Amino acid sequence: MTLNSADTAFRDRLITELPEDIFRPIEPRYLEEPRGRYAGQDALLALPRTTQEVATLIRHAAAARVGVVPYGGGTGLVGGQIYSEGPAPLILSLERMNKVRAVFPGENVLIAEAGVILADVQAAADAVDRLFPLSLAAEGSARIGGNLATNAGGTGVLRYGNARDLCLGLEAVLPDGQIWHGLTRLRKNNTGYDLRHLLIGAEGTLGIITAAALKLFAKPAKMGTALLSVQSPKAALELLSLARDQLGEMISAFELMHRRGFEFLTEQLPDVRQPFAAPPEWTVLIDVGLSGDLDPAESLETLFASALEAGLVEDGLVAQNQQQSDEFWHIREMLPEANRRIGSVSSHDISVPLGAIPEFIGRGGEILAGIGEFRINCFGHVGDGNLHYNVFPVPGKTRADHENQRPAIKRAIHDLVDELGGSISAEHGIGRLKVDDLERYGDPAKLLAIRAIKAALDPLGIMNPGAVVRAVD
Amino acid sequence: MTLNSADTAFRDRLITELPEDIFRPIEPRYLEEPRGRYAGQDALLALPRTTQEVATLIRHAAAARVGVVPYGGGTGLVGGQIYSEGPAPLILSLERMNKVRAVFPGENVLIAEAGVILADVQAAADAVDRLFPLSLAAEGSARIGGNLATNAGGTGVLRYGNARDLCLGLEAVLPDGQIWHGLTRLRKNNTGYDLRHLLIGAEGTLGIITAAALKLFAKPAKMGTALLSVQSPKAALELLSLARDQLGEMISAFELMHRRGFEFLTEQLPDVRQPFAAPPEWTVLIDVGLSGDLDPAESLETLFASALEAGLVEDGLVAQNQQQSDEFWHIREMLPEANRRIGSVSSHDISVPLGAIPEFIGRGGEILAGIGEFRINCFGHVGDGNLHYNVFPVPGKTRADHENQRPAIKRAIHDLVDELGGSISAEHGIGRLKVDDLERYGDPAKLLAIRAIKAALDPLGIMNPGAVVRAVD
Repeated sequence: MTLNSADTAFRDRLITELPEDIFRPIEPRYLEEPRGRYAGQDALLALPRTTQEVATLIRHAAAARVGVVPYGGGTGLVGGQIYSEGPAPLILSLERMNKVRAVFPGENVLIAEAGVILADVQAAADAVDRLFPLSLAAEGSARIGGNLATNAGGTGVLRYGNARDLCLGLEAVLPDGQIWHGLTRLRKNNTGYDLRHLLIGAEGTLGIITAAALKLFAKPAKMGTALLSVQSPKAALELLSLARDQLGEMISAFELMHRRGFEFLTEQLPDVRQPFAAPPEWTVLIDVGLSGDLDPAESLETLFASALEAGLVEDGLVAQNQQQSDEFWHIREMLPEANRRIGSVSSHDISVPLGAIPEFIGRGGEILAGIGEFRINCFGHVGDGNLHYNVFPVPGKTRADHENQRPAIKRAIHDLVDELGGSISAEHGIGRLKVDDLERYGDPAKLLAIRAIKAALDPLGIMNPGAVVRAVD
Repeated sequence: MTLNSADTAFRDRLITELPEDIFRPIEPRYLEEPRGRYAGQDALLALPRTTQEVATLIRHAAAARVGVVPYGGGTGLVGGQIYSEGPAPLILSLERMNKVRAVFPGENVLIAEAGVILADVQAAADAVDRLFPLSLAAEGSARIGGNLATNAGGTGVLRYGNARDLCLGLEAVLPDGQIWHGLTRLRKNNTGYDLRHLLIGAEGTLGIITAAALKLFAKPAKMGTALLSVQSPKAALELLSLARDQLGEMISAFELMHRRGFEFLTEQLPDVRQPFAAPPEWTVLIDVGLSGDLDPAESLETLFASALEAGLVEDGLVAQNQQQSDEFWHIREMLPEANRRIGSVSSHDISVPLGAIPEFIGRGGEILAGIGEFRINCFGHVGDGNLHYNVFPVPGKTRADHENQRPAIKRAIHDLVDELGGSISAEHGIGRLKVDDLERYGDPAKLLAIRAIKAALDPLGIMNPGAVVRAVD
């Protein structure tokens, strides 16, 4: 039951049915991933232009039993796009399928091919005065098909949901090469099992998404931003409750940043303007998007005043204009770059129930202190219970000095997350990096069901082999 | 590969492991459905109290290959809860599993067992000053497990989504009797295929939902309601766009009603107070739920004025208090009862893309006129593209007079829906009533995938046999 190589004979068969320029010599960028942890091997690269061409490629891959690695923007952080062991695969890049097929402003729907870059989806929505709210650091290069395959998260989840919540319908090529025409614009459609939600988050292991019908939203009439300093994660959660009481679902983002992040910026990116003279222990970044005639600065000042009165916040700044708002967000957005420059010993994309955040942060610090001396930069989408919990060496040390401690750190943090009812992968997915973790922490009944579904829909095991589900020999 | 009867021997084996009072003599209500179209046959009725007991029942059913029919509130409209052909099944009613296990107001999460009545979930949320927004006519008897199994819709979908959008995690017993402990309160969790979304909408054919983690919301500070008369469905859609521009996501409901509905109320339920002297051709019922200090009556008056100016509405009423608001909603809520008293020839729970609604209504009327003389009562959740398109006899005739025309009507309306890219079951599901329709109109690749998933997760075919997927002999 092993796979075969995408060899010259395979390619020769394909070009009897497909234009030859569908293939291009492989370039290094298709074999690398952003953190430099994996390197792919030689592969056959195909860049189809149509869904029909994708179907033909998959049909041949199934007939020849060749592994297929779907490739979007290459921004995934768990190695889902990198196949490094086994026979040479077919890398199927969706980058030429980059058309917005249609926009229906009256229906708040946009149909995009899988290869459209996320920022271009946002721009196409903006052009008809609508909002496509999926927003994340890699939006300038990530492609919507990959965003959906990995159920991407980002900063807009609190208000608008994850990528899966923004999708009404899909077109996809299933592992036998059949095209599923599920590109519906319907808001209600109860006709059998929801294949859409099965393919979303399956990371290309059950088929290839070729296009999606996406939900658009009315743009909030006015946006506003505030930075509020709080003493503890617990106070941040109480501030979230207070903000919800006052502003309901108009809170668009609620991010938490630790002092360490500001210090890293000072150390690595001193040009980033920091609004507080001395960074507070914890800072909350709030975005609101208001409808009607509500004034965002006024609403945030009211929240600030009542939070001060309740003893929840210590200091704060409400952006008075778009430039200030951009400056506040720039801090948040540059944190990953500062982290990258320092080089983490271990990084964790985890989530826990909201109420367990203070315990997680408290106990996480104690556990790490027991393992060695580290600097922790904890920040993230606290409104979603999603923290990026990243562990760094102290000045003078490098990540290489802690190489042998990494497994213990990862294990201890994941054990804690599991104990608190959390998730070892909140928004990045399983890919190839976390297959062992999924097996360790996943519910046994769920794991059996996942394997049964994979075997049923991809009996030859050709779709993104080794991602999410261990390949069966 | 046929199923066996839930006979005395089967029951005797079960009571070696389960308390005897888990069984009760079957009553007619478990064998009937609201429209009186199906009657179940004799069956063994079990009423487990715990998830463990459900697991034991399913394990025995699998060992003996006995069909299992999950039973919630019995309010489904497509026969999903009624098994009328084949060996006597085990009817597994969740009614004793009716506890709200926990409420987390700070996290906006509530954990309910499957047998909690929907109205009781709403009340438990209300008790902690939160909103559980799933709302539908049968909420006083429907149970949340059934709501999730059928992905119920209702009047809150426009703002808050379908039942699936309100669920964070599930606990379920899978067809081999294993318990899936997936009762997470997490907002972000990308760890493998999303079983939750597969079980939701599977109508009990892939397992039995025993509990759910449900999303709660901040209650809007103030609610408001308006009734606006429009000349056409097209004007209603333009009004929806205008309302969205002004009020964003604060529009909680946007319902359309035809003049015929008001006439049916006059005819059948004259006590229902009607606000217009003469019913307008089309009426829109709008609900808004506002945050902050916005005043709902004022916001709706502004909308009304600008809609008048744009020539979209002809007349209108903005509720000045809760009582008026209740009166407006009472009209909408009594339409199904008036329909029931007249007795429809054929009723259709369909959806089409928003932009196709005017064409559907126009062509639907023409098609029916070609078949015979009927009265059409078209109403529904127009903001979701979901219409209840119901066909009635003219005065002096009864549904029995049109019995032989029903198949032709159903076929013509479904063909039209399909041509317009719509769904032949928007919110009621497939059950047993629409299995043929799903096979006729369903995408072939999707149908193959559905059958493969069913065979993989329920290889013995014991879970709600014959619902959604035709039983395989």
